[in-house]
Amino acid sequence: MGVMIDNQLQRVAPKAIAAAIEALAARFGNRLITSASVREQHAHSTTWLPAQPPDAVVLARETKDIQDVVRICAPLRVPVIAFGTGTSLEGHINAPAGGVCIDLREMNRILDVHVEDLDCVIEPGVTRKALNEHLRDRGVFFPIDPGADASIGGMASTRASGTNAVRYGTMRDNVLALKVVRGDGEIITTGTRAKKSAAGYDLTHLFLGAEGTLGIISELTIKLRGIPDTIAAAACSFETVEGACNAVILAMQTAIPVARIELLNATQVRCCNAYSKLTLPETPLLLLEFHGSAAEVAEQSKNFAAIAKECGGGEFSWTTRPEDRSKLWQARHDAYWSVRALRPGAGVVATDVCVPISRLADCVVETEADLQRLNLTAPIVGHVGDGNFHCSLLCDVNDPEEMARGEEFMHRLVERAQAMDGTCTGEHGIGQGKQKYMVAELGPEAIEAMRAVKKALDPDNIFNPGKIIPPL
Amino acid sequence: MGVMIDNQLQRVAPKAIAAAIEALAARFGNRLITSASVREQHAHSTTWLPAQPPDAVVLARETKDIQDVVRICAPLRVPVIAFGTGTSLEGHINAPAGGVCIDLREMNRILDVHVEDLDCVIEPGVTRKALNEHLRDRGVFFPIDPGADASIGGMASTRASGTNAVRYGTMRDNVLALKVVRGDGEIITTGTRAKKSAAGYDLTHLFLGAEGTLGIISELTIKLRGIPDTIAAAACSFETVEGACNAVILAMQTAIPVARIELLNATQVRCCNAYSKLTLPETPLLLLEFHGSAAEVAEQSKNFAAIAKECGGGEFSWTTRPEDRSKLWQARHDAYWSVRALRPGAGVVATDVCVPISRLADCVVETEADLQRLNLTAPIVGHVGDGNFHCSLLCDVNDPEEMARGEEFMHRLVERAQAMDGTCTGEHGIGQGKQKYMVAELGPEAIEAMRAVKKALDPDNIFNPGKIIPPL
Repeated sequence: MGVMIDNQLQRVAPKAIAAAIEALAARFGNRLITSASVREQHAHSTTWLPAQPPDAVVLARETKDIQDVVRICAPLRVPVIAFGTGTSLEGHINAPAGGVCIDLREMNRILDVHVEDLDCVIEPGVTRKALNEHLRDRGVFFPIDPGADASIGGMASTRASGTNAVRYGTMRDNVLALKVVRGDGEIITTGTRAKKSAAGYDLTHLFLGAEGTLGIISELTIKLRGIPDTIAAAACSFETVEGACNAVILAMQTAIPVARIELLNATQVRCCNAYSKLTLPETPLLLLEFHGSAAEVAEQSKNFAAIAKECGGGEFSWTTRPEDRSKLWQARHDAYWSVRALRPGAGVVATDVCVPISRLADCVVETEADLQRLNLTAPIVGHVGDGNFHCSLLCDVNDPEEMARGEEFMHRLVERAQAMDGTCTGEHGIGQGKQKYMVAELGPEAIEAMRAVKKALDPDNIFNPGKIIPPL
Repeated sequence: MGVMIDNQLQRVAPKAIAAAIEALAARFGNRLITSASVREQHAHSTTWLPAQPPDAVVLARETKDIQDVVRICAPLRVPVIAFGTGTSLEGHINAPAGGVCIDLREMNRILDVHVEDLDCVIEPGVTRKALNEHLRDRGVFFPIDPGADASIGGMASTRASGTNAVRYGTMRDNVLALKVVRGDGEIITTGTRAKKSAAGYDLTHLFLGAEGTLGIISELTIKLRGIPDTIAAAACSFETVEGACNAVILAMQTAIPVARIELLNATQVRCCNAYSKLTLPETPLLLLEFHGSAAEVAEQSKNFAAIAKECGGGEFSWTTRPEDRSKLWQARHDAYWSVRALRPGAGVVATDVCVPISRLADCVVETEADLQRLNLTAPIVGHVGDGNFHCSLLCDVNDPEEMARGEEFMHRLVERAQAMDGTCTGEHGIGQGKQKYMVAELGPEAIEAMRAVKKALDPDNIFNPGKIIPPL
């Protein structure tokens, strides 16, 4: 596959792993699984990174289970890898040194909902859809939507975001406190239910996005929002990516509180027309959503329509009726499947970068030109209010020459974003796939600081080794 | 004064400090100051914590100056303490072990403003008022307003917030990236200008609120907002604190995007009536501000008025005319001076806590009862949308008996907030004054994690020693 994973990691000693498995079997019975198929499932990843299964999987049901796995594994120097739904994209759940995967899907209890305070306390295996179904009758919701029905513990660990982030923020902005199992099995509490605090180092944010490398999240206190009275959807085509991006910039500057604002490039719109039998103009498309009272969404839509017109947008349609909203947004919802259908059998490699919004049009246009030059197909969808966009690269994973071009493309995409003062990943995370870009992005000093923090909190490199921090 | 500061810190060896001062004098000439009065000024603090002046002050003008101070001091184990405007409230700038204060006020350049991206790059000594004056003509502003015209580097270091936080967030939500001088004088870059990133540990948030204990911030990239078209002010009196708090809870649940929502308790309103010659009903008062288009602020005001009425609020007045807005908010602007005037000559000890909003009424009412029991006066002002409130405790600092009651009050205030799942400080920080509450709030494991991080990034305890982390 050509993607090298070299973390200078030693595989855990067979004796140690045998001892761990024996102790885990005694403690967990048939909740300790070592079958090849289950281990493979727990290393499955929707990327082209090769799967590296763990030696065993434990199905955790409560915090005590996590603590006991860690207490058994850590003294033996056996790695421990947290698993939510397996929807991460950069090899986060691979076990390059072997070790034990803790599957947290059964830790899916909603422990407390405080509607007055707009927060709730949950276990890490709760998925965002399950949570929102639970909350619906209470008039509140959890706004982060990364697409996949991911576990919220996993979303916290990768600092996920998605389509709603332009209004509601990312996981970074929506977690009040965590409980984290540390290397001796004890639990670190990072915060309270207070909306803000200036009490010491921000441990909450240290664990958010740490990809399970500093400890295992066993409980989260997260923010909720009131379900808006009215939701309006809107769509507008533009002649050029620049026009669409300029409209977004103006909307941000005038503080129109759009809840979602998604860009589909011309290639993506063509895909969607073909797959979903739509007749959209095959030019860049903005899809929007507005949340608020009826009067507010009407005002927001009107204000955005004026901006779109000023920026060369075509017909602007908006609606609050659920069935019409779905129709307007169908292209976005079907985007992933439309890409798959474009070339059945090919792999789809999802990658993301994020740049200052003033550079977004440049970055997308240059990326499109690069795809053409390399004779590759990768429709583009962007959370454009944040300057974040995704390429869904179609590649025949059995064709080394095409894969080499794919790698060149991704490499250049990251370099382009970084040269524009952006980041190699807005929301997917580093995992294994993007370690090689860390030093270029932040400089060696930042990586040294990360390495020092990792060493301080996980001196034996037990927690998800081989992730985030590039090898020395 | 009765407040013990015991950090088990050894004062720096006289030989080491002499060597540092000699080297600093050679490098900085008359920008190295050792006069008693200047040293005293740099330990001045608006609290009852005793001043502990540094051994010397260096006036830094550029990043290289910070680097050179650190490179001179660190090998000699001489502490380095960053100084912005000296407006912090918990002894943050004291030098309990001696050392060198780096005064950053002259590092006040605005390096870059990116209006399209709604961000700017500044030196740490830029104050929020200076920044907003610079930005006004560009149609953008920096929304964090802690009251004092603090330096933005200092605000970052204490994770400051203030009246606007309910809408725009705190410093935690408004810093994209930092440059931080570390112990060997090299610079850590924590992020890019991208609005979001999932690239590794969140070093930005690690340094935000670290109170200068992990390094010295030498540059900040911060978020800006578009100046709203229309600003409306509003005021409403309530019979009870519960009524006022319930109105706030409903406003949050229905997602009315109030820009400010401040509670003044009856004692504070009485103070303001006396000082500012107002005739407000001497009951709890809510002051609000709405930002948006003319139609939006009208809608927001109307919606809040309905909620206020439902919660037993009295007459609701709102206005968009600047002079009328000032009049409505005069009580809030004069609050601090009105407290001072209540008992000239007494000290005013400002302290803050933050609780989940559902507990706010209970916390304020119990606090008022405690003041009565202890025969103390401490008007209360709250950033009530966040559950954060301040007591301005009037105490004769020369009366040990009254000071003892004051200490008892503050101690019980923190215990009360923590028992309600809140925090010992929403925005003032820990400094020296609140270290003793850290373990009770987060447990020993969190403090151990903080200690490990401090040790990892500042192994020789050079940066602002004796702050945040309680002694072992």
